[in-house]
Amino acid sequence: MTEAWWEESIQAPDETTAAAARVRQDNLTKPPGSLGRLEELAISLAAMQGRDRPRVDQVWIAVFAGDHGVVAEGVSAFPQAVTQQMLANFVAGGAAIAVLARALGATLEVVDVGSLAAGPMPGVVWDKAGHGTANLATGPAMTESAVVAALDAGRRSVQRARVAGAELYVGGEMGIGNTTAAAALACALLGLSGRELAGPGTGLDSAGVAHKAALLDRALVLHADAEAPLEALRCLGGYELAALAGAYIACARDGVPVLVDGFIATAAALAATRLNPGVRDWLMFGHGSAEPGHARLLAALDARPLLDLGMRLGEGSGAAVAVSLLRSACALHNGMATFAEAGVSGG
Amino acid sequence: MTEAWWEESIQAPDETTAAAARVRQDNLTKPPGSLGRLEELAISLAAMQGRDRPRVDQVWIAVFAGDHGVVAEGVSAFPQAVTQQMLANFVAGGAAIAVLARALGATLEVVDVGSLAAGPMPGVVWDKAGHGTANLATGPAMTESAVVAALDAGRRSVQRARVAGAELYVGGEMGIGNTTAAAALACALLGLSGRELAGPGTGLDSAGVAHKAALLDRALVLHADAEAPLEALRCLGGYELAALAGAYIACARDGVPVLVDGFIATAAALAATRLNPGVRDWLMFGHGSAEPGHARLLAALDARPLLDLGMRLGEGSGAAVAVSLLRSACALHNGMATFAEAGVSGG
Repeated sequence: MTEAWWEESIQAPDETTAAAARVRQDNLTKPPGSLGRLEELAISLAAMQGRDRPRVDQVWIAVFAGDHGVVAEGVSAFPQAVTQQMLANFVAGGAAIAVLARALGATLEVVDVGSLAAGPMPGVVWDKAGHGTANLATGPAMTESAVVAALDAGRRSVQRARVAGAELYVGGEMGIGNTTAAAALACALLGLSGRELAGPGTGLDSAGVAHKAALLDRALVLHADAEAPLEALRCLGGYELAALAGAYIACARDGVPVLVDGFIATAAALAATRLNPGVRDWLMFGHGSAEPGHARLLAALDARPLLDLGMRLGEGSGAAVAVSLLRSACALHNGMATFAEAGVSGG
Repeated sequence: MTEAWWEESIQAPDETTAAAARVRQDNLTKPPGSLGRLEELAISLAAMQGRDRPRVDQVWIAVFAGDHGVVAEGVSAFPQAVTQQMLANFVAGGAAIAVLARALGATLEVVDVGSLAAGPMPGVVWDKAGHGTANLATGPAMTESAVVAALDAGRRSVQRARVAGAELYVGGEMGIGNTTAAAALACALLGLSGRELAGPGTGLDSAGVAHKAALLDRALVLHADAEAPLEALRCLGGYELAALAGAYIACARDGVPVLVDGFIATAAALAATRLNPGVRDWLMFGHGSAEPGHARLLAALDARPLLDLGMRLGEGSGAAVAVSLLRSACALHNGMATFAEAGVSGG
């Protein structure tokens, strides 16, 4: 049996470049370590990009959309129609991620991998793995071929990003109901109960969160056999979650640094690292979401996010806001003078 | 007796504009509150700027330099000559704040308000209140006329910023020994002991920190009568600290939003709010410094910084990195579509 592409071995970031970047940081005109995490970011980016002077000028943002059969259980504060309405809003430029992409000069691609839309929408990449998942509370969310098709859709997005010269990949998502699917997937992967990861999503009240937790527990019992990561993703995830996981794995294979967004993106990142542990080295984490379960997912990935602004919007928005920190890190690393160059006495 | 300019009454940010901005935020295509602190920032900036669509395109960064007689006590990991060497590095563009200002398209002005430089340096604003402070461990750091001259220098910087159309003011500082002066000032204003605010600064070891704490306690006993804020600033502060305090007060008087940097800038902000409590409404806080005393100063100002990246460089660098968050907040507030505009169903 041949190995699937997502299982193939992944090369680690380049340690020689990291060491050189570390030496450079210690020679810049500042007390050593005084730029804190910006120093670490520059060194990590240098290692991932395999060049002394890392750059994140060319940023690729892909937002994957999917619908969720589980909304039949009343788990979202917004109606399902909003998934498609928001696709139009991404393309028209009025959504948060569209505004942020424009401000960054980033490319925004919107990929319909699994919404209920019957046909292509103008400006949206049509790469359908399915038309809305089945209700994960009553059966598997996806078929075996569909979850693979969604992983492949993520990989194709990364191929487009590479052709465009992307120096950083940000994955976002849109899908009414997808905090439920993300929580279900992460519960299965981490062996947690529904209560431990259920949160308000777009705006459930406490009764709604309790209902969501109970529903998650039911789904986890139903899919108790779904222990393998791919099977957990298929039974409990969603098209956009699988596409994100595929994209993260493809980035790691292809040496493209990733900035992960919030709760849903992190659940996908967790699945990606379970499918292929080598992925982890290629992931940075943009922000800690206000969705309460996010802290737990980050801890499971040993990840410390860059921002903590109480955001909980998804779409890739938290990661997009954090891109400027990576750019600051690169600007400082590349642009500061060394003690010798500036004629400044070292400490 | 006429009131000093820094004591004159300060107008609060405009509540009507804030209310309108809040309504706008609730109508944008996102779950209400889901942009977290970016929503609050946009609303605060709108209120401070008195306009529905706030902007921080024009950013003014002023770095004030001063030398400190207290370095005779061996409280810094770097030699005193570095203050002037770094002034040259700011102007040449090789220092962190110069790199960040360039990346932001911000104006960087470097003001020598109190270094030991005997004469003007090319590219540096010469607005001297003195040539290095006296040793605060053995007497008052500044004379009465000199501390006022430093406050005035800060005010003049803000006047230049306003002429240039600044929409945001960032104050930075450079001065070997100034974490000691900042800690001394803050201890006096908050009634703390040296141990509670002494930290490593540019890189003291634990013995150095203990020595610094003991020195602070001695200075606090010596200047026990310096209870009035201006007197505390004069006896225990420094030229760049007083200039920053003057600048913050002038910004608040003139309606210019301020983004405060780290430990030293926050000590100056604390002094400014003690000189004139109306200043507080005009201050935002860019980052939490790795200098351990900073958390205490932030708490005393009821301030929650935007970033927590373990930075501890000064120069205004942490605030400069945080400027992009304000820009993101404005871009989202001004650029996102409302539910009605986008035809998206509300929650």
